[in-house]
Amino acid sequence: MAKNDSDKKRIYFDWAASAPILKSLPASNSLFGNPSSLHSEGRIAKQALEDARKRCAHLLNVPPQNLYFTSGGTESNSIALFSTLTRPAGRIISSLAEHASIREGMETLEKMGKPCGRISVDSAGMVTPELFSKALSQYPDTRFAALMSVNNETGAINDILSLTSRAGGNKAPVHFHCDLVQAIGKIPVDFQKWNFDSASISAHKIGGLRGIGLLYLKKPLEVFYSGGGQENGIRGGSENVTGAVSLADSLEAVRNKQINENAEQSARRRWNRLITALKANKRCTVIPEDRSADDERFSPYILQTAFNNIPGEVMARALDDLGFAVSTGSACSSSSPERPVLAAMGVEEKLRIEGIRISQGYATSDEEIELLLEAIAEILNFL
Amino acid sequence: MAKNDSDKKRIYFDWAASAPILKSLPASNSLFGNPSSLHSEGRIAKQALEDARKRCAHLLNVPPQNLYFTSGGTESNSIALFSTLTRPAGRIISSLAEHASIREGMETLEKMGKPCGRISVDSAGMVTPELFSKALSQYPDTRFAALMSVNNETGAINDILSLTSRAGGNKAPVHFHCDLVQAIGKIPVDFQKWNFDSASISAHKIGGLRGIGLLYLKKPLEVFYSGGGQENGIRGGSENVTGAVSLADSLEAVRNKQINENAEQSARRRWNRLITALKANKRCTVIPEDRSADDERFSPYILQTAFNNIPGEVMARALDDLGFAVSTGSACSSSSPERPVLAAMGVEEKLRIEGIRISQGYATSDEEIELLLEAIAEILNFL
Repeated sequence: MAKNDSDKKRIYFDWAASAPILKSLPASNSLFGNPSSLHSEGRIAKQALEDARKRCAHLLNVPPQNLYFTSGGTESNSIALFSTLTRPAGRIISSLAEHASIREGMETLEKMGKPCGRISVDSAGMVTPELFSKALSQYPDTRFAALMSVNNETGAINDILSLTSRAGGNKAPVHFHCDLVQAIGKIPVDFQKWNFDSASISAHKIGGLRGIGLLYLKKPLEVFYSGGGQENGIRGGSENVTGAVSLADSLEAVRNKQINENAEQSARRRWNRLITALKANKRCTVIPEDRSADDERFSPYILQTAFNNIPGEVMARALDDLGFAVSTGSACSSSSPERPVLAAMGVEEKLRIEGIRISQGYATSDEEIELLLEAIAEILNFL
Repeated sequence: MAKNDSDKKRIYFDWAASAPILKSLPASNSLFGNPSSLHSEGRIAKQALEDARKRCAHLLNVPPQNLYFTSGGTESNSIALFSTLTRPAGRIISSLAEHASIREGMETLEKMGKPCGRISVDSAGMVTPELFSKALSQYPDTRFAALMSVNNETGAINDILSLTSRAGGNKAPVHFHCDLVQAIGKIPVDFQKWNFDSASISAHKIGGLRGIGLLYLKKPLEVFYSGGGQENGIRGGSENVTGAVSLADSLEAVRNKQINENAEQSARRRWNRLITALKANKRCTVIPEDRSADDERFSPYILQTAFNNIPGEVMARALDDLGFAVSTGSACSSSSPERPVLAAMGVEEKLRIEGIRISQGYATSDEEIELLLEAIAEILNFL
């Protein structure tokens, strides 16, 4: 097992926070031109930007003109959410288990006087089609709904296809925004069938650089603020070409057969082993408790679990000391111990405090799962 | 002179749009952790982020906690500008010569019902202390003013120290925001003396990566939207550590004696030669016309000029064909031929259409100036 010395091998189980970089960067100086400039340097950069967009579009099976580069998942979510400020009428609804960028964005919009509504999640952390329909009936003025595909703290998968069907069946049109940050490269995502109006992707969760993401828009959208007019007026600021190339590269890699053939199956096999072992340990509670080892309602890349009488922070620290990186909540809320997503699922306070998140990636091995289980056993021996 | 073949040496005179990358990136994978994560990988990334912040703070002579990393100049401007939405009262004023991110942001705020006012510029494109005082008297409800240091299209320098003094003398407090994007690394900037409340910096204008910038805040500010809570609640989204390191590196480089000792003086010498030669050419009109070759009211890095009966786009294209990169307006408005900054200066339409921007950087040489002048002469021979 990993030795507790400064040269010890680190084993990374926090892929949901950020993934190791898959591919080194292209030589930056070939792309330093401003893509909005009309000279040769600008055109070369523009070409690289559009090539990156086309590669992403091909991989996601959407037209390139429907993809807009942003600075990341948070900004993609914000652009979609705040576009509601350009439309006078209508309520915004989203679930209590959404990412902080949506949750806090809604609080801002509420302060601005926008009517907002929260959709409950079930004990598994999911918005079922029934819960969504109930919210649509409760708020007949709904015109915008934001629901994530894979929850970043529990791995709970929402059935986006069923949810967009319910939205489509609504009397008045509802813009459906889907946060795909933890879904892309992890579970099968079908842009055509799922039929959302907009979606968010982040590069650094799939091995790309920090600071670059995509917003998909089925139709052009009037945005709240476009400052500068780049990206067809959807996102202002000089275009991050190196970032865009990195996003296309990483998307290609995670969709590439080399990495991805049976990647989800391998991930499920590893998670099955991990969850089976943890569930056999009487000090361990998988969250939600009814998540089975091979539960297809959850992403096989994220697991929320708790250890009796060990606060999550202590467990994460103890594992870190043994060479393993895990987290408590999402990285975005590491400064807040409140765990609102778990609270929304009805998880009792003690368990919320004890919860840790274990997340794997394409490079995680069976051996690393065994080492993690050994490390947990070692910690449980003295804590 | 540069040959018109595919192997020709390019000579770059569009530094104001984007600068060549100064320094290759640090090995990305040492910093892949999410700085908000509490484990070793996260702490290493956090340390690198805070080191980068401290290096920037040292170079700018401000406390590190007053600097917030953003995705660039446009976002830094937006965060400051849109913070006005969190305060009920007060007008926002800014000049007609500001960057598109401020100009268009104000239009958005106006649509939201925020009272806004525009400050005229003089024929040199500057907001004089008198013009600013006049605006403050005309709009006694002003609580926020955004004025840039160096204009991105003409190089006109506003006397920020005098302007902030006027703002400070106002009856009610006025938040003074200063866009330093074209000033940093180019002209002397004094954060302490100039005494603005907030300021914006972009990395890619000084040889750093695209997609990273800084917002300086003298005091913490309630922002419109913080989604995720990173950067002390000022800017949400996983922190771009590689970008932050690149910004610190480039800031260090442009402030470094190796590059910068007498850099401004050398730039002034080169600009003196260029402007003297252009002014001697009767087909050329420097904009504004009364800009002298050694005019200290202007940054020696940016020149706006026009050639009689040659539309700016044609001239830029012809120079591009000969191996020289120049631009028409700012890169951010290359899709709009309207040249609102020049219009605000009272430049007649014909001249606005003919205007091109030539901008240099620390690597520009005397020889390149001569080659540019030869190329212009060659073009004027046949156009």
